[in-house]
Amino acid sequence: MRKLLQGLQHFQSSYFPANQELFEQLADGQKPQVLFITCSDSRIVPHLITQSGVGDLFIIRNAGNLVPPFGSANGGEGAAIEYAIHALGIEQVIICGHSNCGAMKGLLKLERLRTEMPLVYEWLQHAESTRRLIQENYSDLKGDELLAITMAENVVTQIENLKTYPVIRSKLHQNKMAIYGWLFEIETGEVLSYNPNTDEFEVPQTLLSNIPDELYVSTSAPPIAEAEEVAIVRKHNSGNLPPWLSSAQAQRIYQGSAQGSTK
Amino acid sequence: MRKLLQGLQHFQSSYFPANQELFEQLADGQKPQVLFITCSDSRIVPHLITQSGVGDLFIIRNAGNLVPPFGSANGGEGAAIEYAIHALGIEQVIICGHSNCGAMKGLLKLERLRTEMPLVYEWLQHAESTRRLIQENYSDLKGDELLAITMAENVVTQIENLKTYPVIRSKLHQNKMAIYGWLFEIETGEVLSYNPNTDEFEVPQTLLSNIPDELYVSTSAPPIAEAEEVAIVRKHNSGNLPPWLSSAQAQRIYQGSAQGSTK
Amino acid sequence: MRKLLQGLQHFQSSYFPANQELFEQLADGQKPQVLFITCSDSRIVPHLITQSGVGDLFIIRNAGNLVPPFGSANGGEGAAIEYAIHALGIEQVIICGHSNCGAMKGLLKLERLRTEMPLVYEWLQHAESTRRLIQENYSDLKGDELLAITMAENVVTQIENLKTYPVIRSKLHQNKMAIYGWLFEIETGEVLSYNPNTDEFEVPQTLLSNIPDELYVSTSAPPIAEAEEVAIVRKHNSGNLPPWLSSAQAQRIYQGSAQGSTK
Amino acid sequence: MRKLLQGLQHFQSSYFPANQELFEQLADGQKPQVLFITCSDSRIVPHLITQSGVGDLFIIRNAGNLVPPFGSANGGEGAAIEYAIHALGIEQVIICGHSNCGAMKGLLKLERLRTEMPLVYEWLQHAESTRRLIQENYSDLKGDELLAITMAENVVTQIENLKTYPVIRSKLHQNKMAIYGWLFEIETGEVLSYNPNTDEFEVPQTLLSNIPDELYVSTSAPPIAEAEEVAIVRKHNSGNLPPWLSSAQAQRIYQGSAQGSTK
Amino acid sequence: MRKLLQGLQHFQSSYFPANQELFEQLADGQKPQVLFITCSDSRIVPHLITQSGVGDLFIIRNAGNLVPPFGSANGGEGAAIEYAIHALGIEQVIICGHSNCGAMKGLLKLERLRTEMPLVYEWLQHAESTRRLIQENYSDLKGDELLAITMAENVVTQIENLKTYPVIRSKLHQNKMAIYGWLFEIETGEVLSYNPNTDEFEVPQTLLSNIPDELYVSTSAPPIAEAEEVAIVRKHNSGNLPPWLSSAQAQRIYQGSAQGSTK
Amino acid sequence: MRKLLQGLQHFQSSYFPANQELFEQLADGQKPQVLFITCSDSRIVPHLITQSGVGDLFIIRNAGNLVPPFGSANGGEGAAIEYAIHALGIEQVIICGHSNCGAMKGLLKLERLRTEMPLVYEWLQHAESTRRLIQENYSDLKGDELLAITMAENVVTQIENLKTYPVIRSKLHQNKMAIYGWLFEIETGEVLSYNPNTDEFEVPQTLLSNIPDELYVSTSAPPIAEAEEVAIVRKHNSGNLPPWLSSAQAQRIYQGSAQGSTK
Repeated sequence: MRKLLQGLQHFQSSYFPANQELFEQLADGQKPQVLFITCSDSRIVPHLITQSGVGDLFIIRNAGNLVPPFGSANGGEGAAIEYAIHALGIEQVIICGHSNCGAMKGLLKLERLRTEMPLVYEWLQHAESTRRLIQENYSDLKGDELLAITMAENVVTQIENLKTYPVIRSKLHQNKMAIYGWLFEIETGEVLSYNPNTDEFEVPQTLLSNIPDELYVSTSAPPIAEAEEVAIVRKHNSGNLPPWLSSAQAQRIYQGSAQGSTK
Repeated sequence: MRKLLQGLQHFQSSYFPANQELFEQLADGQKPQVLFITCSDSRIVPHLITQSGVGDLFIIRNAGNLVPPFGSANGGEGAAIEYAIHALGIEQVIICGHSNCGAMKGLLKLERLRTEMPLVYEWLQHAESTRRLIQENYSDLKGDELLAITMAENVVTQIENLKTYPVIRSKLHQNKMAIYGWLFEIETGEVLSYNPNTDEFEVPQTLLSNIPDELYVSTSAPPIAEAEEVAIVRKHNSGNLPPWLSSAQAQRIYQGSAQGSTK
Repeated sequence: MRKLLQGLQHFQSSYFPANQELFEQLADGQKPQVLFITCSDSRIVPHLITQSGVGDLFIIRNAGNLVPPFGSANGGEGAAIEYAIHALGIEQVIICGHSNCGAMKGLLKLERLRTEMPLVYEWLQHAESTRRLIQENYSDLKGDELLAITMAENVVTQIENLKTYPVIRSKLHQNKMAIYGWLFEIETGEVLSYNPNTDEFEVPQTLLSNIPDELYVSTSAPPIAEAEEVAIVRKHNSGNLPPWLSSAQAQRIYQGSAQGSTK
Repeated sequence: MRKLLQGLQHFQSSYFPANQELFEQLADGQKPQVLFITCSDSRIVPHLITQSGVGDLFIIRNAGNLVPPFGSANGGEGAAIEYAIHALGIEQVIICGHSNCGAMKGLLKLERLRTEMPLVYEWLQHAESTRRLIQENYSDLKGDELLAITMAENVVTQIENLKTYPVIRSKLHQNKMAIYGWLFEIETGEVLSYNPNTDEFEVPQTLLSNIPDELYVSTSAPPIAEAEEVAIVRKHNSGNLPPWLSSAQAQRIYQGSAQGSTK
Repeated sequence: MRKLLQGLQHFQSSYFPANQELFEQLADGQKPQVLFITCSDSRIVPHLITQSGVGDLFIIRNAGNLVPPFGSANGGEGAAIEYAIHALGIEQVIICGHSNCGAMKGLLKLERLRTEMPLVYEWLQHAESTRRLIQENYSDLKGDELLAITMAENVVTQIENLKTYPVIRSKLHQNKMAIYGWLFEIETGEVLSYNPNTDEFEVPQTLLSNIPDELYVSTSAPPIAEAEEVAIVRKHNSGNLPPWLSSAQAQRIYQGSAQGSTK
Repeated sequence: MRKLLQGLQHFQSSYFPANQELFEQLADGQKPQVLFITCSDSRIVPHLITQSGVGDLFIIRNAGNLVPPFGSANGGEGAAIEYAIHALGIEQVIICGHSNCGAMKGLLKLERLRTEMPLVYEWLQHAESTRRLIQENYSDLKGDELLAITMAENVVTQIENLKTYPVIRSKLHQNKMAIYGWLFEIETGEVLSYNPNTDEFEVPQTLLSNIPDELYVSTSAPPIAEAEEVAIVRKHNSGNLPPWLSSAQAQRIYQGSAQGSTK
């Protein structure tokens, strides 16, 4: 606690005075552009990953970055979604899962949690679609590989769940809503983004390919971590896949099951 | 979105390489010391306020930083609390409200939300103790003053609610649990902390008075905003009270009702 | 009641003896191919519309052919869906709405139902996505036109909801699940089917175009209504649209909002 | 699916044109006389069994023809009941169970369903009265006999549950509500009806004994299956009991426990 | 509080020593014969009314002596019922309403409670069957008369609700369960008991008519109020009806609606 | 039942006539001073223990004297609390547990109840804070000792839960609410009261020490048991502790864990 209070003192004596104008301006109201839904995990710092400033991200955090289907939970998720979309007019949502997620680990051994952590057990029912899909389709995987695909499929599950919210469905109808599914790899700092057309996770920067090569300019608060920029071109091993997966494994995992025929 | 992706690229090219070792270490597991429960509001950045690093804070964020009483909600709050306390062994919880809170504004005109934002309406039922207390005890206040006391009383309400969780009650019994109620003033960057003995909100730094004047040292990741330290002694106007309240008003608000007699 | 008992006697003396073998065979177990979800409305007779026989359709009927999102209701819908998909191995689902639907009418004047028909009011919360979409996007419509688009959008809402069920999501992942959205026009006997690619409702027979011109053969029980076939080629006015809508109106309605830009 | 679409085409080209007037008339509104609650099972076709026409039956179908007690479920059952009784003025309800019911089989091995079909497991809690009654009173039975009595007792349970609905209770008070419990034997086509006075299931036709021997006349749509009437007098073996039960067994089953004394 | 503590001291110094043996015996376990469900109202003292001793009555008390239908509430009622019947083997239940009941008054002006006493409002939903019956059948009554019939019908409603509990239904099946509905008139001390055969409330002592004129003997603890017996033969005005109702009014109220025809 | 009816007759012929005036006066409205929450157990008779009269105590009784946290249950507890505090203006609450409590016994072997008494199982979830605290802190105890500490800690749990109710929190804020936790020992007739300052259970009479030695005077109805007062000075063995606990054991139990340090 002492450390936090020292940090607080530090914030008040250094950061705040230097950005006082911004805070005073924000005191009248917020105008975030993005609803960022992620895990409570201490290793995920949305502002750090996206180098966002104060006022940029409206954030929901819970264990496992779950979005219970509309009407299925009376916790804070639905209210925050509704407020973000309807009251703040946000039109972009990011659901961000991450590697080594404790909630996903729990999902893979769910029954064991029933008596020891009953609230976690109940909460993970909202990820039952993920659990069943994994159980019925990836019974041959285990360990890190199993956990990785669980994390990935879970993000897709939550995207489906999100679509059941009235405010989301109405905006989707108007083509005024974009939903992104992200995976954050703690170990590599890499982020992959879900592509619904291919049903694969891809490096989101490819989406930037047709963006003019402008300089990195923050339009609001200075990014929270302002280290000098290093001109590194990240090299993605074997097509942007997590490094701890072989190319073949990863390919199978992230591409879903392509075969099968509709009737 | 483009801005976020640029930020992401920036993070990956600058911050991550410089702190790669920490991330690799954290990839094996987290060991946060604090459960930080705060609002989804975009103007609240816990890591910034507390100058915390990656891995320091396990975070729950929802609209209004509510903690529904145990068993009253099946959303993510209870599961994250249980996981934080039981699985991670966290022994310190901060519930952090803030000024100009949209959820608290909603609470003060609750009936109007019923049809327009039904999920927010339902969610705010978990702050009904706050609403009723305000309605029955502060009917003479309005505007900013009313909102300020609502924000403050709501933090106290959530502390009471938190105590109903089995994992919390068990740890409290062992004297291994500390619960803090914070108020963050966006406009001033100030934080006040609830003192259950006096039933008042105070500047938490006073708790540091008996701390040796050591240098500010972060034990884990470098603080997210590493601006150079400025040796400012903050001057609190009229005893650490929000600047937009007169000293008398504020005194009345934060001191609760001291009179009255038990039977 | 007398009429029903006479009908029962009639069934037992005529239909049953003529099909006794089928019933005896079915007594050991069912093997339906389709899960048919439709309204409780007395004017909808699934077996009649589809000329299906005993044992062909596993049927869920409720007011408004709703499918509450997974986890949001503890009524019979979820259990029947789970049983149909998991226990019976059904891989095709039809959600069939219809014209002049009382539930949809109720949805358009929802608040009035709160005290008079509280259970209907509560139930229609599961169609809130439909209601909000209509309210925010079709405020210019009224009367039959408004009701028609409500019925249509509601079927799409329920398809989205259906996707949140674990058994459905798992089968969709395997490409072993087809979900159809139907609209039945009582007045014309016409059925339109939702095409997710175009976001329009179309005459489903067009899907049959590449089907060899085989004879109509029922593989199981004789169709329930065995009137002799009349060689009528139905003429659809103005592109298979409901006759009571002008071509322009209808076009706007069933095509959704095509404009708008993703970000 | 192809078969269904062919059936649809068949319906539109033959049945509909021949009954167009009726459909056009019904398009303005329904006026059903009976609320028919039965199982989703594909082998149950209410219109076939009762030779009813379009517009005659308002139908609820779920797994196990359950009627959760008032207030215990937020699924479609309560809303459809309320709508049928209050909005449509229906004064007769039939709850129709059937032999070889999958839901009843599940009820007899409930614990096994908990993880494999959790929604079915939850849903069957609404038949807990049936399960407990069977467990505590028929522990000596097994196999078909056990299943038969479960099906029968379950219908009685649901009649009790139905009485807790406000619209039902009010109509019962006015003597304007009749509730029937039916059992349909797939194998024999037989229907038995519950007699609350004797606590036995009987052939409902006996209720017709004092009905003048008029001809079978459908007052609305032509019955869905219009095979020519065959003058068969069904012979009920051993007093209208299921053929696979010995007379003694059946007698014991359907007569409940007559002994015992009130205090 | 002082008064209660004095009473406690009084109990410990007088009553307890005189009945110590009984308490010591009861300390090993209870064996009550009756489950008594009544209102929280301070004017109802079950032991006083029935002159019962310690250990005689297992008691549930809530506002309005409601018994929510099985599965509709997760409060204490269901658990206490289950425990009483299953664990203690109780075979007699009394549901006792009373005159001038605040909960019944609330039920008659329910909408007004929604914001002022939301928990009472929600709770009274379990008496919705009573409210609707009254609204639809006694719209001509008002004042005391309306309140009296509401109290009476509510007891009948709760009897119906009670029958939906698994443990009750199983015992009823065995003829090992008797359910009584009582009305207690505070003003007169009179108790009426529901007769399901006549659908009327009657003086329960008439049931005693064929009881030999034995002396009043308590088999367990001395009755709580041991005033000397006064040989008064109560005179019931106009057939055991509440004194504040005219004979004609009362007759109409307690006899239900006899007319109407079944179909 | 006969016994109860005889008791009723006795009440009407003796007690009522002697106190008719009081009943007539109470018929207009109640004005209780205390909300008494206790167990359904037949051995607990609140009026006897406190020697209270008709009209003195507003009473909630359920299995285990539980108070589910605000919003977590829709049973009668919350409504009765709200009614007592808001409508009746009661400012004192007693939560009274007792020795040899069946509900507490069940809590200690909870899992066994899941299938046999599912409603009790569900209900005891509201005492999960008690269960977890016991499990994590008193694993060395067993038998009577374990049951005694469970009963005691459970009363404290319910006090915490009670504080989450809006009407309670508002009154606490005004210093117009006193909450007492009592333990009643059936075997000894002793009552201990919780002292939040010391976290111990004490003989409540010590609170009376500064009360003038006035005579015992009931201000309302004659106490229900009016045996003559016996001048006994109760001797409490080893500091008012339950006789079946050694002084050392008891001391440990009722004093909680004093060690440990806040951070």
